[in-house]
Amino acid sequence: MRSTGDVTDSGPDTKGRSIAYKLADKQQEISVAEFFEKNKQILGFDSRSKSLLMGIKEAVDNSLDACEEAEIAPDISVRIERLDDDDYRITVDDNGPGIVHSAIKNVYGRLLYGSRFHALRQSRGQQGIGISATVMYGYLTTGKPAHVISKVSGEDEVAWEMDIVIDTKTNRPLVTNERAFTWERDHGTSIEFTIKGRYMTGKQSVFEYLKNTAIVNPHAAITFHDPDGKRWTFEKATEIIPPKPREIKPHPEGMEIGDLIKFAHGSKQKNVKSFLKEDFSRVTSRIADDILELSKIDPRAPPQDLTRDQCAAMIDAIGKVKIMAPQTDCLSPIGDTLIKKGLMHVMEGLRPDYYATPVTRPPKTANGNPFVVEAGIVYGGDIPSDGQVSILRFANRVPLLYQQGACAITKAISEMDWRRYGLEQRGGKGIPYGPAIILVHVASTKVPFTSEGKEAIASYPEILSEVSAALRLCARNLKSHLNKLERRSKTHAKFEIVQEILPDLAKKSADYLERPLPSLERTITKIMNVVWIEPSVEKIGKNNRRYIYRIYNYTNNVRSFGLHAQVPKESVNLALFMNPSFVDLNEEGKAYWEVRDLQPSSSSVVSFELSGEMADTFSQEDVYISGINPAIVMGAEPLPGDWGIKGMEITEEEEILSEDDTLEEEEEELEEEEFEKEADLND
Amino acid sequence: MRSTGDVTDSGPDTKGRSIAYKLADKQQEISVAEFFEKNKQILGFDSRSKSLLMGIKEAVDNSLDACEEAEIAPDISVRIERLDDDDYRITVDDNGPGIVHSAIKNVYGRLLYGSRFHALRQSRGQQGIGISATVMYGYLTTGKPAHVISKVSGEDEVAWEMDIVIDTKTNRPLVTNERAFTWERDHGTSIEFTIKGRYMTGKQSVFEYLKNTAIVNPHAAITFHDPDGKRWTFEKATEIIPPKPREIKPHPEGMEIGDLIKFAHGSKQKNVKSFLKEDFSRVTSRIADDILELSKIDPRAPPQDLTRDQCAAMIDAIGKVKIMAPQTDCLSPIGDTLIKKGLMHVMEGLRPDYYATPVTRPPKTANGNPFVVEAGIVYGGDIPSDGQVSILRFANRVPLLYQQGACAITKAISEMDWRRYGLEQRGGKGIPYGPAIILVHVASTKVPFTSEGKEAIASYPEILSEVSAALRLCARNLKSHLNKLERRSKTHAKFEIVQEILPDLAKKSADYLERPLPSLERTITKIMNVVWIEPSVEKIGKNNRRYIYRIYNYTNNVRSFGLHAQVPKESVNLALFMNPSFVDLNEEGKAYWEVRDLQPSSSSVVSFELSGEMADTFSQEDVYISGINPAIVMGAEPLPGDWGIKGMEITEEEEILSEDDTLEEEEEELEEEEFEKEADLND
Repeated sequence: MRSTGDVTDSGPDTKGRSIAYKLADKQQEISVAEFFEKNKQILGFDSRSKSLLMGIKEAVDNSLDACEEAEIAPDISVRIERLDDDDYRITVDDNGPGIVHSAIKNVYGRLLYGSRFHALRQSRGQQGIGISATVMYGYLTTGKPAHVISKVSGEDEVAWEMDIVIDTKTNRPLVTNERAFTWERDHGTSIEFTIKGRYMTGKQSVFEYLKNTAIVNPHAAITFHDPDGKRWTFEKATEIIPPKPREIKPHPEGMEIGDLIKFAHGSKQKNVKSFLKEDFSRVTSRIADDILELSKIDPRAPPQDLTRDQCAAMIDAIGKVKIMAPQTDCLSPIGDTLIKKGLMHVMEGLRPDYYATPVTRPPKTANGNPFVVEAGIVYGGDIPSDGQVSILRFANRVPLLYQQGACAITKAISEMDWRRYGLEQRGGKGIPYGPAIILVHVASTKVPFTSEGKEAIASYPEILSEVSAALRLCARNLKSHLNKLERRSKTHAKFEIVQEILPDLAKKSADYLERPLPSLERTITKIMNVVWIEPSVEKIGKNNRRYIYRIYNYTNNVRSFGLHAQVPKESVNLALFMNPSFVDLNEEGKAYWEVRDLQPSSSSVVSFELSGEMADTFSQEDVYISGINPAIVMGAEPLPGDWGIKGMEITEEEEILSEDDTLEEEEEELEEEEFEKEADLND
Repeated sequence: MRSTGDVTDSGPDTKGRSIAYKLADKQQEISVAEFFEKNKQILGFDSRSKSLLMGIKEAVDNSLDACEEAEIAPDISVRIERLDDDDYRITVDDNGPGIVHSAIKNVYGRLLYGSRFHALRQSRGQQGIGISATVMYGYLTTGKPAHVISKVSGEDEVAWEMDIVIDTKTNRPLVTNERAFTWERDHGTSIEFTIKGRYMTGKQSVFEYLKNTAIVNPHAAITFHDPDGKRWTFEKATEIIPPKPREIKPHPEGMEIGDLIKFAHGSKQKNVKSFLKEDFSRVTSRIADDILELSKIDPRAPPQDLTRDQCAAMIDAIGKVKIMAPQTDCLSPIGDTLIKKGLMHVMEGLRPDYYATPVTRPPKTANGNPFVVEAGIVYGGDIPSDGQVSILRFANRVPLLYQQGACAITKAISEMDWRRYGLEQRGGKGIPYGPAIILVHVASTKVPFTSEGKEAIASYPEILSEVSAALRLCARNLKSHLNKLERRSKTHAKFEIVQEILPDLAKKSADYLERPLPSLERTITKIMNVVWIEPSVEKIGKNNRRYIYRIYNYTNNVRSFGLHAQVPKESVNLALFMNPSFVDLNEEGKAYWEVRDLQPSSSSVVSFELSGEMADTFSQEDVYISGINPAIVMGAEPLPGDWGIKGMEITEEEEILSEDDTLEEEEEELEEEEFEKEADLND
């Protein structure tokens, strides 16, 4: 028997023991709402100005997702009113499908509650956190509940409104002032909340967020009432609603063994073969057989009984069998033309010289989730040239305004050697300097954000490598543009010298010899030996533009060649497009002219008109030639091999390797190297 | 009555309606475990190499916290074994207080479950996520459960072991193979888990993490068995366990109104006055009265009945009443000496020239949570000078190895103009370049991490401003060091010229005049007019160092003055410390010598020996003088005003303003400016 004395004697033991029991007493479950209430910075609510933006962003994301789901063209209104001090009242209204009465309180009053968490499909919200977190933060900082109105369409439906607060101890909604009423609208949702915030203008402002949102959601109309009573409208840029991303089944690649065990044990299929065929995407009967044979599993075994080791064998087998990449209709990329249009919107007064043809990469998978990367670069004009380049980041059509330093996009940009592409960069690392803006969009069924605030994309090696690949393609376009500029300016200088000095010399000689001034045209031609293509543009009316190419033959031979350009097909009015040299325009917007028998020392003109909103997305400098040695042409590049349409064949001279081809070869080597490097990357 | 036809007729309505109902059907609760299983990157598990580190980090953090809680000097062992492919088995063992049997399964098998979430006290873990997330990720990637052994101290206690898996659908532990047994240890915990990972060396490696952990936890012994079977030991640097941070009550400042409502309604106090006095820290009876008077609340009202508007009034009143800053015994900063020691550890082969005296700032509060910032800078030696400076980040004594770009520490560094302090920096923004390493530690009862992975600190304005302030102090030390170096090198140059040219001139003149060579000493003295203090150091035995100052009087007057230095008091052996000039050494380690009647053109020596591990933390260049015009002394700075001990008074000449004083004034202006700027900051 132990006496109390014994226990006291054991000194440090007693201490250790009592501590262990004391700690055990304190152990308790933490509600997810309490957790986020105490860690609001994780949700993005870490400063007053950012909190205001976050709240609006969550509400707008929700509205856009709901409209997309119902295939409705979104019409969204955002209103900010300043109450006293730092208190702001925010109202976000949409014309979405509405929320059925029984669901409203949980959508707004419960964290980790939602409809899209398990869906493999691109959407803005997914976690069921954002809007409830906003309701929670609003109450935390102002003590006022959120007010929600919603109505679903239907003759016998009424609108419901209610005040909602989250009971953070239980993570359940507390509802007051609930009532049904008749709303003038057929369907839609309106949320009003009060929040402590700070209203800012500038780079990380609500205005900027809405503007960038409009850029990547050209099918949405957004109205903004700022706290000073000003009203801003971002009108729809297109009537076409992007196709609703389709939900897909999980792809077997990228599955972790724990996922597979859980998935198999929860399957409704009777045997493993149908489990593989029916519960996964891209698994055919034959692929299922191959997997099962390799992993030595009886196809008739019930998936619910698979052991850990069987699942491990299956994962191994999946790695060895060739399976098609996941479908991509679960994704909704923005597309080259709209990216360019978007960039032009952002540029406003900066009038850049050059828009690198935007790149949309083929889909890849990261961790089993399909994703697509798109990128664009803008250069020159009035973009400040002494600072770092600006970076515009988007994920699933949502602008990312904060945490740039934490983002895979920034990391990919920082790890690229931009000096090769004409930008300044110390030691070939870090964000480059120069008059450029870089846009990157990552679209995925599951964007791996670094936190619930969805401000930055985690640095998965697959994503880093795709962003790099997209950027390299854009950068290469930029580089050939810069090369072109340099070549053109050199030839210009030569021209000027020739045109200034030659006549002067000729005049002096003629005076001295008392002879008449000779004609210099042929001499100039002999010195220059170039076909010169000079672009210019005229604005006609509000939206129309006439694009003109004047072509001078400063060579000794008669010249015939093809001229090619990619025009935005939406902007073509064939009546205004034709020109004596016009040959063809295909449905992709690839246009083709032929310049025939252009005499030495003479010139010709190719011109056409584009109309409508997309007219200005045409890059007049992206013009190509065929049927002529590109080395003697200034102002156009040789027709790329992947153009799809064959131009004229070169008859007179041999084709020579262009500078860009050399760059391309170097690129490919580099790409391999970097891929290996990236496989080792982290953070 | 409506027919089916009617419904079909209503076209888009039907569509909108069915969508709303379809969506409502899909709404469901998401378990927090499912959420993190699908968002493992948020927990830091986003690449194989990082996942391996994260798992170890969570286990070690837990061990350190448990030992601290029980006031046990931690003895922790970490073992990594490579199984096949990317599978690693990790074992982390500690001598902590152990976990009582009933609590084990929840500690390791349930997310958001813990003992420290509500505690206002510095600790590494707080959220009850980390170790359970590790268990979850281990199972997800390898399908194997974690194995836990724990024993609490006490004669009738046994050890328990069990296998644990998390059922992610319910966020509850599934326990198998549970049994009690007799363990050779008295108390402690051991966790073993298998995880897919990649073992790396270098900057973001397990070794680096453990080394940096040892630096900021000098009271802990850590053993590391790497996958190649090598064994590394980080021995304790001190026997003194840092005082256990005390738990405090919330401070009224920084409370949001929602917090206050919840806190008041959940209070056990009978009236508002005692609610204020008892449930908060730093609220005295008088402060409570002031708050209640200002907010027009009856002190006898029950806190449970406070309305939103009353709470709003109370928040207002709290802002107007002067309340003492929160206590700081809830925090455990590292301290200047240990920071320096830590930096020296990290330096290894880089042999830097200079360690800026580390700075520990006074505590501040952010969002109601007390915090302390500490910083140190190292410069020169073999630190690469062509790259960006290295940044060592710590939060609550935990090294932060990832997400540098997302961290408030990096942001504060990037926003400071380092060109003023002798580092290179383009445009005065961004991470500076140069041979320097910057260390920053943020300690708080609640470090606001940007995500559950605890890799970066959110950019709260209060934290940014304190980090900046600490860095500026360090940077100022660095700058005066660099100034000193420059002055010294200039004087050196002068010396060399004088000593080379003068004798040469003298010799030539003497030869020419056929006279004997004159004595030049007085001439040199006249030209130089300086008291020259030249430091040197000798290593004696393993740990002892003799520090020597040789003092030359190159002036025309007899000189007497005081010499001062701050030595690490742990290293003083008085017997080896004395020197004929020695006057005093106080308990802070401030030493004082007097050089008396040093004749022109003669020299004298002050020297002493330091012993033990801390001997090398002494900066020999930080030596100060008193009783002499500092303008004529090279190699020592004037005694700072805040030194605490008075040196000799200057008798002969007037004191003149040193360069550093001017810098200090500029600094203060700057500090105010920046503070205002920072108030507007976000992300």
